[in-house]
Amino acid sequence: MSSPRVIDVPALVESARAGSARAVGRLVSLVEDAHPALREVMAALAPHTGEAWVIGLTGAPGVGKSTSTTALVRAFRARGSRIGVLAIDPSSPFSGGALLGDRIRMSEHSTDPGVFIRSMASRGHLGGLSWATPQAIRVLDAAGCDVVLVETVGVGQSEVEVAGLADTSVVLLAPGMGDGIQAAKAGILEIGDVFVVNKADRDGADATVHDLRHMISLADRTAPGLWRPPVLKTVAVQADGIDAVMDALDRHRTFITSTGELRRRRERRAADEIEWIALATLRSRLSQVGGHTGVDGLSSRVADGSLDPYAAADLLISHIDR
Amino acid sequence: MSSPRVIDVPALVESARAGSARAVGRLVSLVEDAHPALREVMAALAPHTGEAWVIGLTGAPGVGKSTSTTALVRAFRARGSRIGVLAIDPSSPFSGGALLGDRIRMSEHSTDPGVFIRSMASRGHLGGLSWATPQAIRVLDAAGCDVVLVETVGVGQSEVEVAGLADTSVVLLAPGMGDGIQAAKAGILEIGDVFVVNKADRDGADATVHDLRHMISLADRTAPGLWRPPVLKTVAVQADGIDAVMDALDRHRTFITSTGELRRRRERRAADEIEWIALATLRSRLSQVGGHTGVDGLSSRVADGSLDPYAAADLLISHIDR
Repeated sequence: MSSPRVIDVPALVESARAGSARAVGRLVSLVEDAHPALREVMAALAPHTGEAWVIGLTGAPGVGKSTSTTALVRAFRARGSRIGVLAIDPSSPFSGGALLGDRIRMSEHSTDPGVFIRSMASRGHLGGLSWATPQAIRVLDAAGCDVVLVETVGVGQSEVEVAGLADTSVVLLAPGMGDGIQAAKAGILEIGDVFVVNKADRDGADATVHDLRHMISLADRTAPGLWRPPVLKTVAVQADGIDAVMDALDRHRTFITSTGELRRRRERRAADEIEWIALATLRSRLSQVGGHTGVDGLSSRVADGSLDPYAAADLLISHIDR
Repeated sequence: MSSPRVIDVPALVESARAGSARAVGRLVSLVEDAHPALREVMAALAPHTGEAWVIGLTGAPGVGKSTSTTALVRAFRARGSRIGVLAIDPSSPFSGGALLGDRIRMSEHSTDPGVFIRSMASRGHLGGLSWATPQAIRVLDAAGCDVVLVETVGVGQSEVEVAGLADTSVVLLAPGMGDGIQAAKAGILEIGDVFVVNKADRDGADATVHDLRHMISLADRTAPGLWRPPVLKTVAVQADGIDAVMDALDRHRTFITSTGELRRRRERRAADEIEWIALATLRSRLSQVGGHTGVDGLSSRVADGSLDPYAAADLLISHIDR
């Protein structure tokens, strides 16, 4: 948490809604810092949300997420859509620094007012990505983005969960990525709405497509009335296949809108957000309890075996539910 | 959660303490399932805990964690130590299944009553590994294990956090693992007490050792009075270098015991455990709230923009703190 500072929230929100990239960036920073002003920010933004199409893009390191994102940004801009990009970096829980924090990349779009690009670090807080991402999406949505593209590295459970928060989830793979990809597939197979095998000019692309189609067919995703996730090939660095990806995205959006799935996904995203805020609030209250029945006092007794952790948790909770 | 069943907890705990691998396995299953009987189990176990030396072993896929674990188990058995192994598998939050669930591996030890081996899946619950691992350690500790070895795949933040819960953390690497390892290093550098470059008969082993030593020297870990993490080489498959690893483990244990760091680590582990149990309890209560101010009712209003998520969280929390 940052130390509280006085922030003119109404002015900041108005600037962001008027298209100020600087104001949008400031609001996303407040989200990253879990700033106390967020409560007021979110109250001001709420009436202006619900318009943006949230697209998740996830994949292991090396599959070409950055180039794919760049190609998709270009395609959406060609349609005249305003687009926000949130690149979620898994980071050390210790350093707080982003491993892949190339905040200045995609310089071709850096002066385009229709594009907002931001890398976010997950700081190892409770919730991490789950806490911050829906709120950052909300900022970009209220700021008038037609599309919010959330790019995550599909290496851990939380990244997969974040991808699952999107209206439409794109899972990116590349041929010949070995065991890591095999493992990743197992986690991402259920959340992908569109699968893209990038670097499709490399050996093994067709085999990867074939494997994926086979795995999808085994994953009970082919029943009538369900969305059948397409498996597409791209060479993002030269924009090959991006049109087909855009078509698939559009078809998925039409599908989820007409079936009510869009509404269900958004309610689930809202439910997660509410739950995380509630738990973070309660956690913060618990951490402020001092003395013998605060965490420090209790942990000493649990460490020496004189108290069990459940009894300790009960004592801790007793401070907030009376 | 499993459906509650009647379990004779005192009898189960007594069997586990008498060395029944079956009873120990049953207790670990209760932990994995977050079974309601855990409260009673942990109360019964608490007085018998605090003896085991908890060693974390973490590394990316392919560095040789299984062979290293096998070699360490053999070395501890040669000393007459009883040893429990918890192999933590990152798993799909959807399938609930373990990716690497080789529960029957290490068959050479499968009939040795001094060794207990168990793979655990993280199920995508709140807390996941953080919730289950300290409790499973507690089971093995109370069951009389002198050493509990917790093997995790160092791919995500939660795995790194779990490794950080150990009394002594061993970080395993291999030469020439590329970007994945580079990324992993950044997260694991701060938690490793002993670094081991396995597969040291391969090209690049000395370069990896050199890189690691350099990174450690940059990580503010070399101040006087601090433990200086050694960087060792092994070829675990033929037990080369394992004696030196055992020496380093012993030296680290002596160091943390004499400096009070052992006590601090255990209190931190207990604090995490208490906090997770408290939050899981609160989360469970929140999820049971129905109606307009339950999560489902609130998420509908947040999704349509008529309520902001903080106000919704306040309404939700109001059910438990009156």
